[in-house]
Amino acid sequence: MTLKRLLLVSNSTLYGGGYLEHCQDQIQKFLGGQVKRVLFIPYALQDRDNYAKTARQKFQSLGYALDSIHEAADPVESVLTAEAIFIGGGNTFRLLKALYDNNLIQVIRKKVIEDGIPYIGSSAGTNVATVSINTTNDMPIVYPPSLQALGFVPFNINPHYLDPNANSKHMGALREGCMLLVEGNKATLLGITKARLFKRGECPTEHEPGEDFSFLLNQ
Amino acid sequence: MTLKRLLLVSNSTLYGGGYLEHCQDQIQKFLGGQVKRVLFIPYALQDRDNYAKTARQKFQSLGYALDSIHEAADPVESVLTAEAIFIGGGNTFRLLKALYDNNLIQVIRKKVIEDGIPYIGSSAGTNVATVSINTTNDMPIVYPPSLQALGFVPFNINPHYLDPNANSKHMGALREGCMLLVEGNKATLLGITKARLFKRGECPTEHEPGEDFSFLLNQ
Repeated sequence: MTLKRLLLVSNSTLYGGGYLEHCQDQIQKFLGGQVKRVLFIPYALQDRDNYAKTARQKFQSLGYALDSIHEAADPVESVLTAEAIFIGGGNTFRLLKALYDNNLIQVIRKKVIEDGIPYIGSSAGTNVATVSINTTNDMPIVYPPSLQALGFVPFNINPHYLDPNANSKHMGALREGCMLLVEGNKATLLGITKARLFKRGECPTEHEPGEDFSFLLNQ
Repeated sequence: MTLKRLLLVSNSTLYGGGYLEHCQDQIQKFLGGQVKRVLFIPYALQDRDNYAKTARQKFQSLGYALDSIHEAADPVESVLTAEAIFIGGGNTFRLLKALYDNNLIQVIRKKVIEDGIPYIGSSAGTNVATVSINTTNDMPIVYPPSLQALGFVPFNINPHYLDPNANSKHMGALREGCMLLVEGNKATLLGITKARLFKRGECPTEHEPGEDFSFLLNQ
């Protein structure tokens, strides 16, 4: 059986640090030595060229080549041949709409769930990895054909949790500086800040970095 | 020609005050002595009974009877016979979806734009009075069939403006405690806090209570 592997990061830049600096060790550990190239999906920001440049510099410094999907002649084909995928942050509505517009939802699901290539998400890229974007704090600047997202995990994440305004059925909220690592049926909370878990009809609970979140995967 | 009349309030409860207390004088002045009954639309909150009770108490204390649309056998008919409409705050996505689900968009537009009955909006009720809900800060807890709203004014409003995260084409941002009064082709900023105006390609500008905002209506 193929192992599903996800690294879901709350945010790209933690206050006072550089781009992806707060999670670069986890990224290297997560991708390991086998992955040589990462496919970057910059759809959450408007200026895709500059975004790809920033991401490429960072991944190159970590020892990985980076291809940006917006430079590919055939986005679907670039996913089909990807060794690993990284979706960065920005506006979650813009990102999800572009994933639908480019017919990427099913093909990314296939690669990550069936083929087991590593998936890294940050902020909006973490949001779209969940069941839906119902818990985004972003403004709906565009209208995606659905709020359903990639559905790698059967719950929602609010990647910029600040205060308890949760209306969704159930959602895990990552404070900035948090990560969720999923490997097959095992999920672990990483990072430097705690997370808050909301389940319908239950009081929210606080969770420490290092905690096993696997129970969230089997609901 | 019929005069379009709108009172668009940022929020229902200003810190430290009671429900609609910060704008009750403007509401009385706006509705005047001719209106006897107000039609309340409580769709932005889940508990419509309690919401209607709160709104009814307040409007009765100001001298107006209040009918809640969720108690009407035929919502469309209740709009057609309304003397004035008040849409309260809550979740903007839930509100807009319910307006569509109950086929109320066109009939509310007709009553307010063609027949000129007074419209009061607060928070989400102000957001749906604009061209679209693209500038809401609410979580997309449900999926409305469109982000297009009632379109009484040709711009967007963010009714809970805190900091400059505007991505929309152009938007007027009301700080809590603000109101926008529209009477025909005249728009005036009311309330106790200033508003911030965003126009594409221009620097945001600050505006004082009392300022004439009519230029926003003729774009």
